[in-house]
Amino acid sequence: MLYVVGLGPGEKEKMSFEALECLKQAEIIVGYTTYIRLIKELVGDKEIVSTGMKQEIDRCKKAIELAQSGKEVAVVSSGDAGVYGMAGLILELVIKLEEPIEVKVIPGITASIAGAALLGAPLMNDFCHISLSDLMTPWEMIEKRLHAAASADFVICLYNPRSKGRPKHLVKALEIIQQYKSGDTIVGLAKDVGRKKELGILTTIQDLDETLVDMTTVVLIGNKETYVSNGQMITPRGYQL
Amino acid sequence: MLYVVGLGPGEKEKMSFEALECLKQAEIIVGYTTYIRLIKELVGDKEIVSTGMKQEIDRCKKAIELAQSGKEVAVVSSGDAGVYGMAGLILELVIKLEEPIEVKVIPGITASIAGAALLGAPLMNDFCHISLSDLMTPWEMIEKRLHAAASADFVICLYNPRSKGRPKHLVKALEIIQQYKSGDTIVGLAKDVGRKKELGILTTIQDLDETLVDMTTVVLIGNKETYVSNGQMITPRGYQL
Repeated sequence: MLYVVGLGPGEKEKMSFEALECLKQAEIIVGYTTYIRLIKELVGDKEIVSTGMKQEIDRCKKAIELAQSGKEVAVVSSGDAGVYGMAGLILELVIKLEEPIEVKVIPGITASIAGAALLGAPLMNDFCHISLSDLMTPWEMIEKRLHAAASADFVICLYNPRSKGRPKHLVKALEIIQQYKSGDTIVGLAKDVGRKKELGILTTIQDLDETLVDMTTVVLIGNKETYVSNGQMITPRGYQL
Repeated sequence: MLYVVGLGPGEKEKMSFEALECLKQAEIIVGYTTYIRLIKELVGDKEIVSTGMKQEIDRCKKAIELAQSGKEVAVVSSGDAGVYGMAGLILELVIKLEEPIEVKVIPGITASIAGAALLGAPLMNDFCHISLSDLMTPWEMIEKRLHAAASADFVICLYNPRSKGRPKHLVKALEIIQQYKSGDTIVGLAKDVGRKKELGILTTIQDLDETLVDMTTVVLIGNKETYVSNGQMITPRGYQL
């Protein structure tokens, strides 16, 4: 059996009972070095295969090989493994096998959901997720989705918003979004959610300091009704109060 | 202190450690009758205030009053309290108080994420959430969002897809979506996720039997690359394999 386990963001507190149970049952745990570090003390003395960043395919192939040899294997992913994570890659590789192995995806709390809770309640009306990484989706498609989401006033969660290799993607995205949403639309930044240094920042599209945003940040852009009060980012559901 | 706690879908397995910790710390737990039933055995002998459906405002006001009296109170919500849930309503009510009380939102696994894990990995590329309930969002706005999301080929998660009071909303939504997505686009239904009777169903837009869909169902509509293999709904991330 191969489990693909979403650990939730940060440390144990946001992990599900089912996820920890899988880690305990597994004989071997496979994951990106940073995530392995987060869970190492939870799982005790267990075989661990950790690999560096951008080695997703190798990591998944390794996990599959181990599962084929009859081991109980857990591949771990931060947040939810099914949101831009390892789950799809594992399933895509497994269906190519002559004798498919059994795979079970264990859901986790994804960054947008945990970030929203940190900031208040920004996701109370329709919202979408867009990754600004164009490593695997053409930038033109990302732009098309930004136009669509902003024009219909979705709350927008941006994943992979800015990295050294893509320093200008966030600014380009906000330019598109501002064609539809006003400059004073509320923006929430949730950084390092679930870790000791977690930080929520509330600002607006026009006042956003892009240098505060890195790969550990999820960017939540409100709809036209989103407001800030008492330090909380709130998108009204529409109740008459 | 007032905690707004997302329980995750279904039973204890998909709850976070932090959520259970809050339930244990709380002196009083407030929630919709069905959710209270799910957690009753976890929290032991504790004061419980349960209210029926559609009494959200009363329930939240009651929880706030109890917290104002100095009690530690947890309001519980299925899935994540910040996704069309109680978190926003609580915060909106609290900011109207002369002396605001402290509120902490505890995130949970929302239905789309858990449903996706049950079905495979349909959320590996950009996706959005649209509620088909027009109790608080005008239907014209919902239609606008359906057009936008389908035209930019988002994976679409439909919440509140069909109820006795809204038997035709799903069909109307699929008609709009079919203006952009072909009839053979994969649709996954995730019903009663996390409960004993949970059920995943894979079909297409044109073959969907709408009578299978009820308020415990989340409907996931793929993008143009989504496919089914080995009983799994997979949206490719874009890796060259």
